[in-house]
Amino acid sequence: MTEAHDRAAGARRPAVTLERHSPIGTQRDNGRPVTGGWGPGGTDGADGHEAVELLRQARVAVDPELRSALGTLPGPLGRVALYHFGWQQADGTPAAGSAGKAIRPALVLTSAAALGGPEARAAAVKAAAAVELIHNFTLLHDDVMDRDATRRHRPTAWTVFGDSDAILAGDALQALALRLLAEDPHPASAAAVARLADCVVELCAGQQTDTAMERRGPTGITLDETLAMAEAKTGALLGCATALGALYAGAPEEDVRALDAFGRAAGLAFQLIDDVIGLWGDPRRTGKPAGADLAVRKKSLPVVAALASGTPFAAELAALYARPYEEGVEDLAATALLVERAGGRDWAQAEAADRMGRAMQELARAVPDPEAAGGLLALAEFVTRRST
Amino acid sequence: MTEAHDRAAGARRPAVTLERHSPIGTQRDNGRPVTGGWGPGGTDGADGHEAVELLRQARVAVDPELRSALGTLPGPLGRVALYHFGWQQADGTPAAGSAGKAIRPALVLTSAAALGGPEARAAAVKAAAAVELIHNFTLLHDDVMDRDATRRHRPTAWTVFGDSDAILAGDALQALALRLLAEDPHPASAAAVARLADCVVELCAGQQTDTAMERRGPTGITLDETLAMAEAKTGALLGCATALGALYAGAPEEDVRALDAFGRAAGLAFQLIDDVIGLWGDPRRTGKPAGADLAVRKKSLPVVAALASGTPFAAELAALYARPYEEGVEDLAATALLVERAGGRDWAQAEAADRMGRAMQELARAVPDPEAAGGLLALAEFVTRRST
Repeated sequence: MTEAHDRAAGARRPAVTLERHSPIGTQRDNGRPVTGGWGPGGTDGADGHEAVELLRQARVAVDPELRSALGTLPGPLGRVALYHFGWQQADGTPAAGSAGKAIRPALVLTSAAALGGPEARAAAVKAAAAVELIHNFTLLHDDVMDRDATRRHRPTAWTVFGDSDAILAGDALQALALRLLAEDPHPASAAAVARLADCVVELCAGQQTDTAMERRGPTGITLDETLAMAEAKTGALLGCATALGALYAGAPEEDVRALDAFGRAAGLAFQLIDDVIGLWGDPRRTGKPAGADLAVRKKSLPVVAALASGTPFAAELAALYARPYEEGVEDLAATALLVERAGGRDWAQAEAADRMGRAMQELARAVPDPEAAGGLLALAEFVTRRST
Repeated sequence: MTEAHDRAAGARRPAVTLERHSPIGTQRDNGRPVTGGWGPGGTDGADGHEAVELLRQARVAVDPELRSALGTLPGPLGRVALYHFGWQQADGTPAAGSAGKAIRPALVLTSAAALGGPEARAAAVKAAAAVELIHNFTLLHDDVMDRDATRRHRPTAWTVFGDSDAILAGDALQALALRLLAEDPHPASAAAVARLADCVVELCAGQQTDTAMERRGPTGITLDETLAMAEAKTGALLGCATALGALYAGAPEEDVRALDAFGRAAGLAFQLIDDVIGLWGDPRRTGKPAGADLAVRKKSLPVVAALASGTPFAAELAALYARPYEEGVEDLAATALLVERAGGRDWAQAEAADRMGRAMQELARAVPDPEAAGGLLALAEFVTRRST
């Protein structure tokens, strides 16, 4: 997403006019970042060098904690978890796979560093690992419920070990996460357990709404409930990650709240862009065939916005979504064009820009020093411009 | 279980000769309880008045905490949880159902009282509710995995709300449990979260072994691994309950460990008796048809002991278990008699007595005052003599 877009036809939310301006992290002339806008530039340019480095450092910091925590699992549960993390093959032999991008641990550590410097960052490593364990617990369970067969380019755990083992491994990861935090002697430990447990409830509620919405017809779903679902499913854990970083930096409650709001807003922007990529992204980069989301009638945010647009294209799209996709009969490229003509694509991009604007405002409130805020800004921009 | 039994034929463990003697709670002549034996009497006689009262008081104490915790769940998840607890019908209208016997909360509260008096008992109410939430999280998930259709005389949550909602409600209950403990200002809070989270991992491992064993043939299973599985699935949470009570009473680590061992041993005795009742209990009291466990080829402890007995009856039983039950062809009463003749019934009852003996030893070590220990003894005897 490198260009500003006009407001989507029929979308109800106010559009944000995106201006090209200096990003927060490099704007040091008045000591206060400009907020409310979202430009295509970044603290470290469009290539995201700083973010990539933050993610790499997070991976290096949390992997020993994660491996140590997974090492305490009894044999068969440990095998499922290590497979899921990409560190073992299904037969238990080592694998060189990736455990993912470490976006959430990086948000914890970078948030702690932004508010408390390197000492806070070092103290927050267990919290970062706990957030990553919770993320992977939800992936294990979501894959079972959604019957998703592939994750990180490998067969999902339930397809290899069965539903029961995948459910139990997920249950154990939740327990490991909260134990890791509870055992941490850091003074923020108890508050962090409570906050992360609250987040788990919200993640469950988001997944519940998602599965319930998938069972409903295409016209019975509102844009507001879809946005609320996406915030619970995706925004909540990103917000919790940045909030935990603030807690571990000893920040006052209002800054913790601001960083939660920052992470949530950036998370929703991330989801919106993810949905746009799912519909119009390059299949060679998304790793799934063009139109795959449309073929399974996924009610992603751009689709729901298009259906709610009140345009003639919306009615046409609703008629298509009311029946299953038939290969050779329906042209998925034409369906994607319907979503675009009904304003779904423009709405999603404008909404993402709006959310990023809010994220910047919250960040500027809690971390007025642009240099200190630079890492979080770089991560937020990285996740909303990701191409896979 | 009201009589002593000889050692089971072919069973490998030493039998305990049960003597009729005064129970710990009433034996005050020398100030030290007699340990190592287990009589049919009880602190409050064979009718279990004291235990019933402890269970009732536990229900009264924890229900407001449980209702308050469940009340924080978002709508649909709350509905699944309230249905599961028997407090709502499937349509959300109130139900007068029972949330279960509150054995685990009663163990927490009675353990706290035994080691710290009424103040410790009052301070441990949130811990008692947390243990009950964990118990119900495992029930929700186990029912999904085991495809059990009935629980507490009602359709299980997954049959009413679907697999996804039952899994998510269970996930949320785990989070609520650990949050409830983490938010408790009691000084034992952090240690309790860590201990309960450890217990969750053990419960998951127990369920994993159980489901894996069910998939294997009848002859590939050893008695040791079946006992280990039962300890993880049932003993661990009862041990954690009594350990948490000790933690909340500010007891030293060795007493916490002794009470964990007490709960574990009593829990395994409970499981052994439960399995005996499942095979030879009165169907009007068990609520399931006679021989139901045999018909589904359940590898319960008496069955595995019988199969491992090396008797001719074992070979006959193995041949039966190798093929599915056929109504009208196989006589389940005759199959139950095979288990009995192979020594499965006597072994289970002797083993239960042995475990109860160990439980009494651990209890006497941590709580030498027989009056203080009386409540825990009454609960242990109640759960191992339950008829439903």
